Amino acid sequence: MNKKILIIGLGLIGGSYAEALTNKGYEVYAITRSQDSIDYAKEKGIIKDGTIELNKDFISSFEFVIFSLYPTVFIDWIKKNKSLLNDNALITDVSGVKESVIYDIKEELKGTHIEYVSHHPMAGREVYGVKNATKEIFNGANFIVTPFEDSSEEAVNTIKELGEVLGFKKISVLDPKTHDEMIAYLSQLTHAIAVGLMCGNDNTHLKDYTGDSFRDLTRIASINEDMWSELFLMNKEALLKEMDMFNKAMKELRDAIENDDIEKLKEMMRTSTLRRSYFKKD
Amino acid sequence: MNKKILIIGLGLIGGSYAEALTNKGYEVYAITRSQDSIDYAKEKGIIKDGTIELNKDFISSFEFVIFSLYPTVFIDWIKKNKSLLNDNALITDVSGVKESVIYDIKEELKGTHIEYVSHHPMAGREVYGVKNATKEIFNGANFIVTPFEDSSEEAVNTIKELGEVLGFKKISVLDPKTHDEMIAYLSQLTHAIAVGLMCGNDNTHLKDYTGDSFRDLTRIASINEDMWSELFLMNKEALLKEMDMFNKAMKELRDAIENDDIEKLKEMMRTSTLRRSYFKKD
Repeated sequence: MNKKILIIGLGLIGGSYAEALTNKGYEVYAITRSQDSIDYAKEKGIIKDGTIELNKDFISSFEFVIFSLYPTVFIDWIKKNKSLLNDNALITDVSGVKESVIYDIKEELKGTHIEYVSHHPMAGREVYGVKNATKEIFNGANFIVTPFEDSSEEAVNTIKELGEVLGFKKISVLDPKTHDEMIAYLSQLTHAIAVGLMCGNDNTHLKDYTGDSFRDLTRIASINEDMWSELFLMNKEALLKEMDMFNKAMKELRDAIENDDIEKLKEMMRTSTLRRSYFKKD
Repeated sequence: MNKKILIIGLGLIGGSYAEALTNKGYEVYAITRSQDSIDYAKEKGIIKDGTIELNKDFISSFEFVIFSLYPTVFIDWIKKNKSLLNDNALITDVSGVKESVIYDIKEELKGTHIEYVSHHPMAGREVYGVKNATKEIFNGANFIVTPFEDSSEEAVNTIKELGEVLGFKKISVLDPKTHDEMIAYLSQLTHAIAVGLMCGNDNTHLKDYTGDSFRDLTRIASINEDMWSELFLMNKEALLKEMDMFNKAMKELRDAIENDDIEKLKEMMRTSTLRRSYFKKD
């Protein structure tokens, strides 16, 4: 992996990447929208330097560029500014959805020598911005590389190495479609449920009676609406499919309760307990 | 509060009560179905003595009796064995639902001098049995007393004292109906959702990609089917109402996604974030 790295987008994830990479001896530079974020990151020593400007000499001096932007912003950036990139660069991005992002980017890069291999760092916090960045969020987390069928082995290996250097626990490779189905279930459906649970009924007057169980379950109900609304819509097909399957199960459960069908209830609970056992921590 | 206490039902909760009360200097005796549980509890010093037999001389020697049984088992016990109780006893129970339990018990006790004030210790674990009992589960948890309109102040105060002695963080008093509505939302709906999420789709092949977020959310998907199926059916009306409200919100969310209505999505996420903020820990 190239020792000199450019991170475009210095938010929670970009900032945490910067901290982790600087900590491991890489020379990290950043481009982001706010001068304040650059100043903060320089002062904290998590980047070597940075700018809010788009300068071809500066940008093209990097052979490895990591985009840590919202998916739509990333696509826009490439459309408008791809000519600023080094023609031999390897680029990657952290988008939480893949199919609706990476094929557009690949199309845009046709006719260049830029190689693009996407990945997804499955880590985050309920807060955002570089000021909340910390490399600790990658401890124990999953890092998923989502190459194209024709991606070079070298590029895929570099992105896997990135995951290792950042300190992720497990590095996997998944095709983009499988990634999006996985994320629709494990991440998006659960966020949708937390939002649905909060919106269904204004039960905030019950706050004094709750325990850690409800708090754990609804931690993700505190949600960044700009990012997540975009992620939901960009993975619409897979998410709607998961929502429909969940809804069907909730309907079965509801019918069993309405009909006092205790055997059906127990059967569903046994299925739930069994399946949950697969998700236990190693 | 009487220094000599009888606990009927020595499972996770009954055993944890025994440990906490013994630890505070009370003389704790137990009746339960398995001799093994009695032997274990005696050996660990969490009860002074216990038996699997129903002996009138023994049972009637107690002026304070705590029932830690499944709701239906508790009702059965009272129906069959109420004549064994001291006619001046104060009795209480830990049932997780109230309206469908406590009026039946009250009816059974008509014509006796036994006073009955119910309560709900909002604490638990995903494991059960006296061997998993520990007084630590009450730290930071809520204890809710659910008296009748005509309960004596003295009895209500004794049950509140029980909550304090056990080490609960917050002791509240709620009428039975409000308790059941609260529990339908904060506890039963969330358990139903966790079960629905696991039953909707066999996604166990995705286990390698999950993070702590999904694990936190589905911790309660590992569920004691005998107890929870009973609790669901005994609070049917309130639970179905909450499930329907949740379902309506999920439908709104689904429609917004299907129609690419990003403004509606953001609005729901903002509502979710705002309401969740009320549930933050003190």
